[in-house]
Amino acid sequence: MKPFEDATQTRRIKRVKNGACQTCDDILVVEEPLEIRVGNRRFTATMRTPGDDFHLARGLLFSEGVISSLDDIGQMRFCDAGEIAEFGGDENDARNILQIQLRHSNVAPHLWERNIISNSSCGLCGKASIEALRARVAPLPPGGTVDSQLLESLTHKLRAAQKMFEATGGTHAAGIFDSRGEALAMFEDIGRHNATDKAIGFGLQSGFLPHSKNEPLILLVSGRASFEIVQKALVARISIVASVSAASSLAAQLAGENNQTLVAFLRGENFSILAGSERVV
Amino acid sequence: MKPFEDATQTRRIKRVKNGACQTCDDILVVEEPLEIRVGNRRFTATMRTPGDDFHLARGLLFSEGVISSLDDIGQMRFCDAGEIAEFGGDENDARNILQIQLRHSNVAPHLWERNIISNSSCGLCGKASIEALRARVAPLPPGGTVDSQLLESLTHKLRAAQKMFEATGGTHAAGIFDSRGEALAMFEDIGRHNATDKAIGFGLQSGFLPHSKNEPLILLVSGRASFEIVQKALVARISIVASVSAASSLAAQLAGENNQTLVAFLRGENFSILAGSERVV
Repeated sequence: MKPFEDATQTRRIKRVKNGACQTCDDILVVEEPLEIRVGNRRFTATMRTPGDDFHLARGLLFSEGVISSLDDIGQMRFCDAGEIAEFGGDENDARNILQIQLRHSNVAPHLWERNIISNSSCGLCGKASIEALRARVAPLPPGGTVDSQLLESLTHKLRAAQKMFEATGGTHAAGIFDSRGEALAMFEDIGRHNATDKAIGFGLQSGFLPHSKNEPLILLVSGRASFEIVQKALVARISIVASVSAASSLAAQLAGENNQTLVAFLRGENFSILAGSERVV
Repeated sequence: MKPFEDATQTRRIKRVKNGACQTCDDILVVEEPLEIRVGNRRFTATMRTPGDDFHLARGLLFSEGVISSLDDIGQMRFCDAGEIAEFGGDENDARNILQIQLRHSNVAPHLWERNIISNSSCGLCGKASIEALRARVAPLPPGGTVDSQLLESLTHKLRAAQKMFEATGGTHAAGIFDSRGEALAMFEDIGRHNATDKAIGFGLQSGFLPHSKNEPLILLVSGRASFEIVQKALVARISIVASVSAASSLAAQLAGENNQTLVAFLRGENFSILAGSERVV
Protein backbone atom coordinates (compact mmCIF):
# COMPACT_ATOMS: atom_id res chain seq x y z
CA MET A 1 0.00 0.00 0.00
CA LYS A 2 1.46 3.32 -1.01
CA PRO A 3 1.17 6.29 1.32
CA PHE A 4 -1.96 8.49 1.06
CA GLU A 5 -3.72 5.84 -0.98
CA ASP A 6 -6.95 7.82 -1.09
CA ALA A 7 -5.27 11.19 -1.36
CA THR A 8 -3.07 10.65 -4.41
CA GLN A 9 -3.47 9.03 -7.79
CA THR A 10 -0.91 7.84 -10.30
CA ARG A 11 -1.41 8.99 -13.89
CA ARG A 12 0.52 8.29 -17.06
CA ILE A 13 1.71 11.66 -18.39
CA LYS A 14 4.15 13.23 -20.82
CA ARG A 15 6.94 15.23 -19.24
CA VAL A 16 8.76 17.87 -21.27
CA LYS A 17 12.20 18.59 -19.87
CA ASN A 18 15.06 20.44 -21.55
CA GLY A 19 13.39 20.01 -24.91
CA ALA A 20 12.90 16.24 -24.60
CA CYS A 21 9.52 14.60 -24.09
CA GLN A 22 9.09 11.34 -22.23
CA THR A 23 6.17 9.30 -20.98
CA CYS A 24 6.24 8.62 -17.25
CA ASP A 25 4.08 8.15 -14.17
CA ASP A 26 3.13 11.22 -12.17
CA ILE A 27 1.42 11.45 -8.80
CA LEU A 28 -1.56 13.80 -8.64
CA VAL A 29 -3.42 15.00 -5.59
CA VAL A 30 -6.95 13.61 -5.48
CA GLU A 31 -9.78 16.14 -5.64
CA GLU A 32 -13.23 14.74 -4.83
CA PRO A 33 -16.49 16.27 -3.69
CA LEU A 34 -17.55 15.74 -0.09
CA GLU A 35 -21.18 16.40 0.68
CA ILE A 36 -21.91 17.18 4.31
CA ARG A 37 -25.50 16.55 5.34
CA VAL A 38 -26.79 17.78 8.66
CA GLY A 39 -30.09 16.37 9.92
CA ASN A 40 -31.07 15.10 6.46
CA ARG A 41 -30.43 18.44 4.75
CA ARG A 42 -27.53 19.18 2.48
CA PHE A 43 -25.39 21.56 4.51
CA THR A 44 -22.61 22.09 2.00
CA ALA A 45 -20.37 20.39 -0.51
CA THR A 46 -16.67 20.97 -0.85
CA MET A 47 -13.97 19.78 -3.18
CA ARG A 48 -11.44 18.20 -0.87
CA THR A 49 -8.68 15.63 -0.71
CA PRO A 50 -10.16 12.47 0.87
CA GLY A 51 -8.98 11.64 4.38
CA ASP A 52 -9.71 13.12 7.81
CA ASP A 53 -13.19 14.04 6.63
CA PHE A 54 -14.65 13.81 10.13
CA HIS A 55 -12.13 16.37 11.32
CA LEU A 56 -12.97 18.54 8.32
CA ALA A 57 -16.68 18.43 9.16
CA ARG A 58 -16.10 19.10 12.87
CA GLY A 59 -13.83 22.04 12.15
CA LEU A 60 -16.20 23.48 9.59
CA LEU A 61 -19.37 23.25 11.71
CA PHE A 62 -17.48 24.80 14.60
CA SER A 63 -15.85 27.64 12.74
CA GLU A 64 -19.12 28.50 10.99
CA GLY A 65 -20.82 28.73 14.38
CA VAL A 66 -23.33 25.94 13.75
CA ILE A 67 -22.04 24.08 16.82
CA SER A 68 -20.27 25.49 19.84
CA SER A 69 -18.69 22.24 21.02
CA LEU A 70 -18.30 18.65 19.90
CA ASP A 71 -21.03 17.69 22.40
CA ASP A 72 -23.46 19.29 19.98
CA ILE A 73 -22.74 16.50 17.48
CA GLY A 74 -24.88 13.43 18.19
CA GLN A 75 -23.74 11.16 15.37
CA MET A 76 -21.44 11.45 12.37
CA ARG A 77 -21.02 8.70 9.77
CA PHE A 78 -20.62 8.09 6.05
CA CYS A 79 -23.91 7.26 4.34
CA ASP A 80 -24.60 3.58 3.78
CA ALA A 81 -25.26 1.93 0.43
CA GLY A 82 -29.04 2.26 0.76
CA GLU A 83 -28.94 5.98 1.45
CA ILE A 84 -26.44 6.60 -1.32
CA ALA A 85 -28.68 4.80 -3.82
CA GLU A 86 -31.58 6.95 -2.62
CA PHE A 87 -29.53 10.11 -3.40
CA GLY A 88 -28.80 8.73 -6.87
CA GLY A 89 -25.22 7.70 -6.14
CA ASP A 90 -23.31 4.45 -6.41
CA GLU A 91 -20.58 2.60 -4.51
CA ASN A 92 -17.96 5.13 -5.64
CA ASP A 93 -19.70 7.71 -3.46
CA ALA A 94 -19.40 5.66 -0.29
CA ARG A 95 -16.75 7.90 1.19
CA ASN A 96 -18.12 11.14 -0.18
CA ILE A 97 -21.38 11.71 1.67
CA LEU A 98 -21.23 12.44 5.38
CA GLN A 99 -24.35 12.38 7.54
CA ILE A 100 -24.41 14.30 10.80
CA GLN A 101 -27.11 14.42 13.44
CA LEU A 102 -26.87 17.31 15.87
CA ARG A 103 -27.96 17.25 19.50
CA HIS A 104 -27.95 21.02 19.57
CA SER A 105 -27.23 23.83 17.16
CA ASN A 106 -26.77 27.55 17.59
CA VAL A 107 -28.41 28.11 14.25
CA ALA A 108 -31.89 27.06 13.14
CA PRO A 109 -31.75 24.65 10.16
CA HIS A 110 -33.49 27.06 7.80
CA LEU A 111 -30.75 29.61 8.51
CA TRP A 112 -27.82 27.30 7.79
CA GLU A 113 -27.78 28.24 4.18
CA ARG A 114 -27.60 31.88 5.12
CA ASN A 115 -24.98 31.24 7.73
CA ILE A 116 -22.80 29.44 5.27
CA ILE A 117 -23.73 31.13 2.06
CA SER A 118 -20.99 29.60 0.09
CA ASN A 119 -18.80 26.60 -0.23
CA SER A 120 -17.35 25.24 2.95
CA SER A 121 -13.90 25.71 1.63
CA CYS A 122 -14.53 29.34 0.85
CA GLY A 123 -16.69 29.79 3.84
CA LEU A 124 -18.45 32.68 5.26
CA CYS A 125 -19.14 35.25 2.60
CA GLY A 126 -21.21 38.35 2.42
CA LYS A 127 -21.50 41.31 4.67
CA ALA A 128 -24.36 39.78 6.69
CA SER A 129 -22.09 36.91 7.63
CA ILE A 130 -19.22 39.22 8.53
CA GLU A 131 -21.55 41.17 10.80
CA ALA A 132 -22.84 37.91 12.28
CA LEU A 133 -19.28 36.85 13.05
CA ARG A 134 -18.63 40.15 14.83
CA ALA A 135 -21.75 39.60 16.93
CA ARG A 136 -20.93 36.04 17.97
CA VAL A 137 -17.18 36.17 18.53
CA ALA A 138 -15.52 38.31 21.21
CA PRO A 139 -12.09 39.86 20.64
CA LEU A 140 -9.17 37.82 21.95
CA PRO A 141 -7.77 38.80 25.35
CA PRO A 142 -4.45 40.63 25.21
CA GLY A 143 -1.23 38.91 26.21
CA GLY A 144 0.90 35.94 25.27
CA THR A 145 4.01 36.46 23.16
CA VAL A 146 6.22 34.43 20.84
CA ASP A 147 9.79 34.93 19.79
CA SER A 148 10.32 35.92 16.17
CA GLN A 149 12.90 33.14 15.81
CA LEU A 150 10.27 30.61 16.87
CA LEU A 151 8.00 31.81 14.08
CA GLU A 152 10.80 31.28 11.61
CA SER A 153 11.32 27.69 12.79
CA LEU A 154 7.65 26.80 12.23
CA THR A 155 7.86 27.17 8.47
CA HIS A 156 10.58 24.52 8.37
CA LYS A 157 8.53 22.19 10.58
CA LEU A 158 5.43 22.60 8.45
CA ARG A 159 7.36 22.15 5.23
CA ALA A 160 8.99 18.97 6.53
CA ALA A 161 5.54 17.52 7.32
CA GLN A 162 4.09 18.25 3.87
CA LYS A 163 4.47 14.72 2.53
CA MET A 164 1.53 15.03 0.18
CA PHE A 165 2.94 18.25 -1.25
CA GLU A 166 6.29 16.56 -1.64
CA ALA A 167 4.63 13.86 -3.76
CA THR A 168 2.22 15.99 -5.77
CA GLY A 169 3.11 19.70 -5.50
CA GLY A 170 -0.64 20.25 -5.33
CA THR A 171 -1.64 20.59 -1.67
CA HIS A 172 -1.82 23.26 0.98
CA ALA A 173 -0.98 22.68 4.61
CA ALA A 174 -2.17 24.06 7.94
CA GLY A 175 -0.37 23.53 11.23
CA ILE A 176 -1.25 24.49 14.78
CA PHE A 177 1.70 25.01 17.12
CA ASP A 178 2.04 25.85 20.79
CA SER A 179 4.14 28.73 22.10
CA ARG A 180 7.25 26.52 22.34
CA GLY A 181 6.91 25.59 18.68
CA GLU A 182 5.56 22.08 19.27
CA ALA A 183 3.27 20.91 16.46
CA LEU A 184 -0.18 20.03 17.81
CA ALA A 185 -1.79 19.38 14.42
CA MET A 186 -0.63 19.34 10.79
CA PHE A 187 -2.92 18.56 7.87
CA GLU A 188 -2.78 18.78 4.09
CA ASP A 189 -5.55 19.20 1.53
CA ILE A 190 -6.03 20.51 -1.99
CA GLY A 191 -7.89 23.43 -0.37
CA ARG A 192 -6.24 25.59 2.23
CA HIS A 193 -9.58 26.15 3.98
CA ASN A 194 -10.09 22.40 4.20
CA ALA A 195 -6.58 21.88 5.61
CA THR A 196 -7.38 24.49 8.26
CA ASP A 197 -10.74 22.89 9.06
CA LYS A 198 -9.07 19.50 9.43
CA ALA A 199 -6.49 20.93 11.85
CA ILE A 200 -9.17 22.72 13.88
CA GLY A 201 -11.47 19.68 13.88
CA PHE A 202 -8.56 17.58 15.13
CA GLY A 203 -7.91 20.18 17.84
CA LEU A 204 -11.52 20.04 18.98
CA GLN A 205 -11.43 16.25 19.08
CA SER A 206 -8.11 16.25 20.97
CA GLY A 207 -9.39 18.83 23.44
CA PHE A 208 -6.83 21.60 22.86
CA LEU A 209 -9.33 23.77 20.96
CA PRO A 210 -11.02 26.11 21.52
CA HIS A 211 -7.88 27.38 23.23
CA SER A 212 -8.31 28.92 26.68
CA LYS A 213 -4.82 29.36 28.12
CA ASN A 214 -2.74 32.51 28.16
CA GLU A 215 0.18 31.14 26.12
CA PRO A 216 -0.74 31.73 22.52
CA LEU A 217 -1.33 29.09 19.88
CA ILE A 218 -0.15 29.71 16.33
CA LEU A 219 -1.96 28.69 13.15
CA LEU A 220 0.45 28.55 10.20
CA VAL A 221 -0.90 28.15 6.66
CA SER A 222 1.28 27.33 3.69
CA GLY A 223 -0.51 29.72 1.35
CA ARG A 224 -2.25 33.02 1.79
CA ALA A 225 -4.32 34.29 4.71
CA SER A 226 -7.78 35.37 3.63
CA PHE A 227 -10.66 36.59 5.74
CA GLU A 228 -11.86 33.08 6.32
CA ILE A 229 -8.58 31.66 7.58
CA VAL A 230 -8.40 34.44 10.18
CA GLN A 231 -12.05 33.84 11.08
CA LYS A 232 -11.51 30.11 11.65
CA ALA A 233 -8.57 30.81 13.95
CA LEU A 234 -10.53 33.47 15.80
CA VAL A 235 -13.45 31.16 16.55
CA ALA A 236 -10.96 28.53 17.80
CA ARG A 237 -9.33 31.27 19.97
CA ILE A 238 -5.97 30.97 18.25
CA SER A 239 -4.34 34.33 18.80
CA ILE A 240 -1.55 34.21 16.19
CA VAL A 241 -2.11 33.48 12.49
CA ALA A 242 0.89 33.26 10.20
CA SER A 243 0.93 32.70 6.46
CA VAL A 244 3.80 31.90 4.16
CA SER A 245 2.28 34.13 1.51
CA ALA A 246 0.21 37.35 1.46
CA ALA A 247 -2.78 38.31 3.58
CA SER A 248 -5.83 40.19 2.35
CA SER A 249 -7.19 43.57 3.45
CA LEU A 250 -10.16 41.94 5.16
CA ALA A 251 -7.99 39.40 6.96
CA ALA A 252 -5.86 42.22 8.39
CA GLN A 253 -8.94 44.22 9.36
CA LEU A 254 -10.63 41.29 11.10
CA ALA A 255 -7.45 40.36 12.98
CA GLY A 256 -6.92 44.00 14.00
CA GLU A 257 -10.47 44.35 15.33
CA ASN A 258 -10.08 41.23 17.46
CA ASN A 259 -6.66 41.63 19.09
CA GLN A 260 -5.36 38.87 16.88
CA THR A 261 -1.80 38.82 15.55
CA LEU A 262 -1.49 38.38 11.79
CA VAL A 263 1.88 37.61 10.19
CA ALA A 264 2.31 37.40 6.41
CA PHE A 265 5.14 36.44 4.05
CA LEU A 266 6.75 34.35 6.79
CA ARG A 267 9.86 33.24 4.93
CA GLY A 268 12.95 32.52 6.93
CA GLU A 269 13.73 35.40 9.25
CA ASN A 270 11.83 38.01 7.24
CA PHE A 271 8.11 38.64 7.61
CA SER A 272 5.41 41.30 7.92
CA ILE A 273 3.19 41.83 10.96
CA LEU A 274 -0.15 43.19 9.80
CA ALA A 275 -1.95 43.26 13.15
CA GLY A 276 -1.24 42.63 16.83
CA SER A 277 2.52 43.16 16.59
CA GLU A 278 2.85 43.31 20.41
CA ARG A 279 2.74 39.49 20.54
CA VAL A 280 5.94 39.12 18.50
CA VAL A 281 9.13 39.83 20.47
CA MET B 1 -5.15 58.36 -8.00
CA LYS B 2 -3.04 55.31 -7.44
CA PRO B 3 -3.44 52.29 -9.68
CA PHE B 4 -6.09 49.68 -8.71
CA GLU B 5 -7.64 52.11 -6.24
CA ASP B 6 -10.44 49.71 -5.36
CA ALA B 7 -8.31 46.62 -5.57
CA THR B 8 -5.53 47.50 -3.14
CA GLN B 9 -5.34 49.10 0.28
CA THR B 10 -2.44 50.67 2.13
CA ARG B 11 -1.89 49.53 5.71
CA ARG B 12 0.63 50.56 8.35
CA ILE B 13 2.55 47.40 9.28
CA LYS B 14 5.72 46.22 11.04
CA ARG B 15 8.29 44.61 8.79
CA VAL B 16 10.89 42.28 10.27
CA LYS B 17 13.96 42.03 8.08
CA ASN B 18 17.35 40.62 8.98
CA GLY B 19 16.54 40.86 12.67
CA ALA B 20 15.44 44.53 12.55
CA CYS B 21 11.85 45.67 12.88
CA GLN B 22 10.53 48.81 11.24
CA THR B 23 7.15 50.40 10.76
CA CYS B 24 6.21 51.03 7.16
CA ASP B 25 3.33 51.13 4.69
CA ASP B 26 2.37 47.93 2.92
CA ILE B 27 -0.05 47.41 0.05
CA LEU B 28 -2.63 44.66 0.58
CA VAL B 29 -4.98 43.16 -1.96
CA VAL B 30 -8.59 44.04 -1.19
CA GLU B 31 -10.93 41.13 -0.40
CA GLU B 32 -14.61 42.03 -0.31
CA PRO B 33 -17.82 40.04 -0.66
CA LEU B 34 -19.76 40.35 -3.91
CA GLU B 35 -23.34 39.20 -3.79
CA ILE B 36 -24.80 38.25 -7.16
CA ARG B 37 -28.58 38.35 -7.26
CA VAL B 38 -30.45 36.90 -10.22
CA GLY B 39 -34.11 37.80 -10.62
CA ASN B 40 -34.39 38.99 -7.02
CA ARG B 41 -32.90 35.81 -5.55
CA ARG B 42 -29.47 35.53 -4.06
CA PHE B 43 -27.56 33.44 -6.59
CA THR B 44 -24.23 33.34 -4.84
CA ALA B 45 -21.72 35.37 -2.89
CA THR B 46 -18.01 35.31 -3.47
CA MET B 47 -15.01 36.91 -1.83
CA ARG B 48 -13.37 38.79 -4.64
CA THR B 49 -11.11 41.72 -5.43
CA PRO B 50 -13.35 44.61 -6.57
CA GLY B 51 -13.17 45.54 -10.24
CA ASP B 52 -14.49 43.92 -13.42
CA ASP B 53 -17.42 42.55 -11.44
CA PHE B 54 -19.69 42.51 -14.50
CA HIS B 55 -17.20 40.30 -16.30
CA LEU B 56 -16.99 38.09 -13.22
CA ALA B 57 -20.77 37.66 -13.14
CA ARG B 58 -21.02 37.02 -16.90
CA GLY B 59 -18.25 34.44 -16.78
CA LEU B 60 -19.72 32.72 -13.75
CA LEU B 61 -23.29 32.48 -15.06
CA PHE B 62 -21.96 31.16 -18.34
CA SER B 63 -19.55 28.60 -16.96
CA GLU B 64 -22.15 27.32 -14.50
CA GLY B 65 -24.56 26.81 -17.38
CA VAL B 66 -27.23 29.22 -16.14
CA ILE B 67 -26.97 31.20 -19.39
CA SER B 68 -25.81 30.00 -22.76
CA SER B 69 -25.02 33.41 -24.24
CA LEU B 70 -24.88 37.04 -23.19
CA ASP B 71 -28.22 37.55 -24.93
CA ASP B 72 -29.75 35.67 -22.01
CA ILE B 73 -28.86 38.58 -19.73
CA GLY B 74 -31.50 41.32 -19.83
CA GLN B 75 -30.05 43.76 -17.34
CA MET B 76 -27.08 43.88 -14.99
CA ARG B 77 -26.46 46.69 -12.51
CA PHE B 78 -25.26 47.40 -8.98
CA CYS B 79 -28.12 47.77 -6.53
CA ASP B 80 -29.18 51.33 -5.73
CA ALA B 81 -29.23 52.92 -2.30
CA GLY B 82 -32.90 52.06 -1.70
CA GLU B 83 -32.44 48.38 -2.49
CA ILE B 84 -29.28 48.17 -0.40
CA ALA B 85 -31.07 49.68 2.60
CA GLU B 86 -33.84 47.11 2.11
CA PHE B 87 -31.25 44.30 2.31
CA GLY B 88 -29.89 45.81 5.53
CA GLY B 89 -26.79 47.33 3.96
CA ASP B 90 -25.36 50.83 3.83
CA GLU B 91 -23.45 53.01 1.37
CA ASN B 92 -20.31 50.89 1.77
CA ASP B 93 -22.14 48.07 0.03
CA ALA B 94 -22.90 50.08 -3.08
CA ARG B 95 -20.37 48.21 -5.21
CA ASN B 96 -20.93 44.84 -3.60
CA ILE B 97 -24.44 43.79 -4.63
CA LEU B 98 -25.06 43.02 -8.27
CA GLN B 99 -28.60 42.61 -9.61
CA ILE B 100 -29.15 40.64 -12.81
CA GLN B 101 -32.38 40.09 -14.72
CA LEU B 102 -32.33 37.22 -17.19
CA ARG B 103 -34.24 37.07 -20.43
CA HIS B 104 -33.74 33.34 -20.57
CA SER B 105 -32.08 30.70 -18.45
CA ASN B 106 -31.19 27.10 -19.05
CA VAL B 107 -31.88 26.34 -15.43
CA ALA B 108 -35.10 26.90 -13.51
CA PRO B 109 -34.59 29.33 -10.60
CA HIS B 110 -35.35 26.73 -7.94
CA LEU B 111 -32.52 24.60 -9.32
CA TRP B 112 -29.87 27.33 -9.30
CA GLU B 113 -28.86 26.45 -5.80
CA ARG B 114 -28.36 22.84 -6.85
CA ASN B 115 -26.54 23.85 -9.99
CA ILE B 116 -24.12 26.00 -8.07
CA ILE B 117 -24.02 24.26 -4.76
CA SER B 118 -21.12 26.17 -3.51
CA ASN B 119 -19.37 29.45 -3.63
CA SER B 120 -18.96 30.90 -7.05
CA SER B 121 -15.25 31.00 -6.61
CA CYS B 122 -15.13 27.33 -5.79
CA GLY B 123 -17.88 26.51 -8.19
CA LEU B 124 -19.52 23.41 -9.17
CA CYS B 125 -19.21 20.82 -6.46
CA GLY B 126 -20.76 17.45 -5.82
CA LYS B 127 -21.17 14.45 -7.99
CA ALA B 128 -24.58 15.54 -9.24
CA SER B 129 -23.00 18.66 -10.67
CA ILE B 130 -20.16 16.75 -12.26
CA GLU B 131 -22.69 14.46 -13.93
CA ALA B 132 -24.72 17.46 -15.00
CA LEU B 133 -21.64 18.98 -16.59
CA ARG B 134 -20.99 15.77 -18.51
CA ALA B 135 -24.55 15.86 -19.79
CA ARG B 136 -24.52 19.48 -20.94
CA VAL B 137 -21.04 19.86 -22.42
CA ALA B 138 -19.80 17.93 -25.44
CA PRO B 139 -16.17 16.88 -25.77
CA LEU B 140 -13.96 19.29 -27.71
CA PRO B 141 -13.29 18.46 -31.34
CA PRO B 142 -9.80 17.11 -32.03
CA GLY B 143 -7.21 19.26 -33.75
CA GLY B 144 -5.33 22.48 -33.30
CA THR B 145 -1.77 22.44 -32.03
CA VAL B 146 0.63 24.79 -30.27
CA ASP B 147 4.37 24.81 -30.11
CA SER B 148 5.90 23.99 -26.74
CA GLN B 149 8.08 27.11 -26.97
CA LEU B 150 4.96 29.22 -27.34
CA LEU B 151 3.60 27.77 -24.10
CA GLU B 152 6.81 28.71 -22.36
CA SER B 153 6.53 32.32 -23.57
CA LEU B 154 3.03 32.69 -22.14
CA THR B 155 4.17 32.44 -18.53
CA HIS B 156 6.44 35.43 -19.06
CA LYS B 157 3.62 37.42 -20.66
CA LEU B 158 1.20 36.62 -17.85
CA ARG B 159 3.77 37.39 -15.16
CA ALA B 160 4.59 40.74 -16.78
CA ALA B 161 0.90 41.67 -16.70
CA GLN B 162 0.44 40.83 -13.00
CA LYS B 163 0.64 44.40 -11.75
CA MET B 164 -1.59 43.73 -8.75
CA PHE B 165 0.54 40.75 -7.77
CA GLU B 166 3.63 42.91 -8.15
CA ALA B 167 2.17 45.38 -5.66
CA THR B 168 0.63 42.96 -3.16
CA GLY B 169 1.93 39.42 -3.70
CA GLY B 170 -1.64 38.35 -2.97
CA THR B 171 -3.42 37.81 -6.29
CA HIS B 172 -3.86 35.09 -8.87
CA ALA B 173 -4.01 35.72 -12.59
CA ALA B 174 -5.77 34.13 -15.55
CA GLY B 175 -4.89 34.85 -19.15
CA ILE B 176 -6.46 33.72 -22.41
CA PHE B 177 -4.12 33.56 -25.40
CA ASP B 178 -4.56 32.72 -29.06
CA SER B 179 -2.47 30.14 -30.88
CA ARG B 180 0.15 32.75 -31.84
CA GLY B 181 0.59 33.69 -28.19
CA GLU B 182 -1.34 36.97 -28.38
CA ALA B 183 -3.00 37.85 -25.07
CA LEU B 184 -6.77 38.22 -25.53
CA ALA B 185 -7.60 38.70 -21.84
CA MET B 186 -5.62 38.95 -18.60
CA PHE B 187 -7.22 39.47 -15.20
CA GLU B 188 -6.14 39.33 -11.58
CA ASP B 189 -8.14 38.59 -8.44
CA ILE B 190 -7.58 37.28 -4.92
CA GLY B 191 -9.35 34.11 -6.08
CA ARG B 192 -8.10 32.13 -9.05
CA HIS B 193 -11.65 31.11 -9.96
CA ASN B 194 -12.69 34.75 -9.98
CA ALA B 195 -9.74 35.71 -12.18
CA THR B 196 -10.78 32.97 -14.61
CA ASP B 197 -14.43 34.07 -14.55
CA LYS B 198 -13.38 37.66 -15.27
CA ALA B 199 -11.29 36.56 -18.25
CA ILE B 200 -14.10 34.37 -19.61
CA GLY B 201 -16.72 37.07 -19.01
CA PHE B 202 -14.53 39.54 -20.90
CA GLY B 203 -14.19 37.01 -23.71
CA LEU B 204 -17.96 36.63 -23.95
CA GLN B 205 -18.41 40.39 -24.00
CA SER B 206 -15.69 40.82 -26.63
CA GLY B 207 -17.15 38.03 -28.75
CA PHE B 208 -14.17 35.67 -28.89
CA LEU B 209 -15.80 33.20 -26.48
CA PRO B 210 -17.24 30.63 -26.66
CA HIS B 211 -14.46 29.78 -29.08
CA SER B 212 -15.49 28.15 -32.34
CA LYS B 213 -12.42 28.17 -34.60
CA ASN B 214 -10.00 25.35 -35.19
CA GLU B 215 -6.89 27.15 -33.90
CA PRO B 216 -6.84 26.48 -30.19
CA LEU B 217 -7.12 29.05 -27.44
CA ILE B 218 -5.06 28.66 -24.28
CA LEU B 219 -6.16 29.47 -20.74
CA LEU B 220 -3.17 30.00 -18.47
CA VAL B 221 -3.65 30.28 -14.70
CA SER B 222 -0.96 31.45 -12.32
CA GLY B 223 -1.80 28.88 -9.65
CA ARG B 224 -3.11 25.35 -9.71
CA ALA B 225 -5.63 23.77 -12.07
CA SER B 226 -8.54 22.25 -10.20
CA PHE B 227 -11.64 20.59 -11.61
CA GLU B 228 -13.42 23.88 -11.80
CA ILE B 229 -10.77 25.73 -13.79
CA VAL B 230 -10.84 22.96 -16.40
CA GLN B 231 -14.64 23.02 -16.39
CA LYS B 232 -14.78 26.79 -17.01
CA ALA B 233 -12.41 26.46 -19.97
CA LEU B 234 -14.37 23.52 -21.33
CA VAL B 235 -17.68 25.39 -21.32
CA ALA B 236 -15.95 28.32 -23.09
CA ARG B 237 -14.53 25.78 -25.63
CA ILE B 238 -10.92 26.58 -24.76
CA SER B 239 -9.03 23.47 -25.73
CA ILE B 240 -5.74 24.02 -23.87
CA VAL B 241 -5.49 24.73 -20.15
CA ALA B 242 -2.09 25.40 -18.63
CA SER B 243 -1.23 26.02 -15.01
CA VAL B 244 1.98 27.26 -13.47
CA SER B 245 1.46 24.89 -10.56
CA ALA B 246 -0.06 21.41 -10.06
CA ALA B 247 -3.31 20.02 -11.43
CA SER B 248 -5.69 17.75 -9.52
CA SER B 249 -6.79 14.20 -10.33
CA LEU B 250 -10.28 15.36 -11.23
CA ALA B 251 -8.98 18.16 -13.46
CA ALA B 252 -6.89 15.63 -15.40
CA GLN B 253 -9.80 13.21 -15.64
CA LEU B 254 -12.25 15.84 -16.89
CA ALA B 255 -9.78 17.17 -19.45
CA GLY B 256 -9.01 13.63 -20.63
CA GLU B 257 -12.69 12.77 -21.08
CA ASN B 258 -13.27 15.88 -23.19
CA ASN B 259 -10.32 15.92 -25.60
CA GLN B 260 -8.92 18.88 -23.72
CA THR B 261 -5.19 19.45 -23.29
CA LEU B 262 -4.05 19.99 -19.70
CA VAL B 263 -0.54 21.24 -18.95
CA ALA B 264 0.76 21.58 -15.38
CA PHE B 265 3.92 22.96 -13.76
CA LEU B 266 4.52 25.21 -16.75
CA ARG B 267 7.80 26.78 -15.70
CA GLY B 268 10.19 27.89 -18.33
CA GLU B 269 10.76 25.12 -20.84
CA ASN B 270 9.79 22.29 -18.48
CA PHE B 271 6.21 21.14 -17.96
CA SER B 272 3.91 18.14 -17.66
CA ILE B 273 1.12 17.22 -20.08
CA LEU B 274 -1.61 15.43 -18.16
CA ALA B 275 -4.14 15.07 -20.99
CA GLY B 276 -4.43 15.72 -24.72
CA SER B 277 -0.69 15.72 -25.40
CA GLU B 278 -1.27 15.56 -29.18
CA ARG B 279 -1.94 19.31 -29.20
CA VAL B 280 1.57 20.18 -28.01
CA VAL B 281 4.26 19.87 -30.69
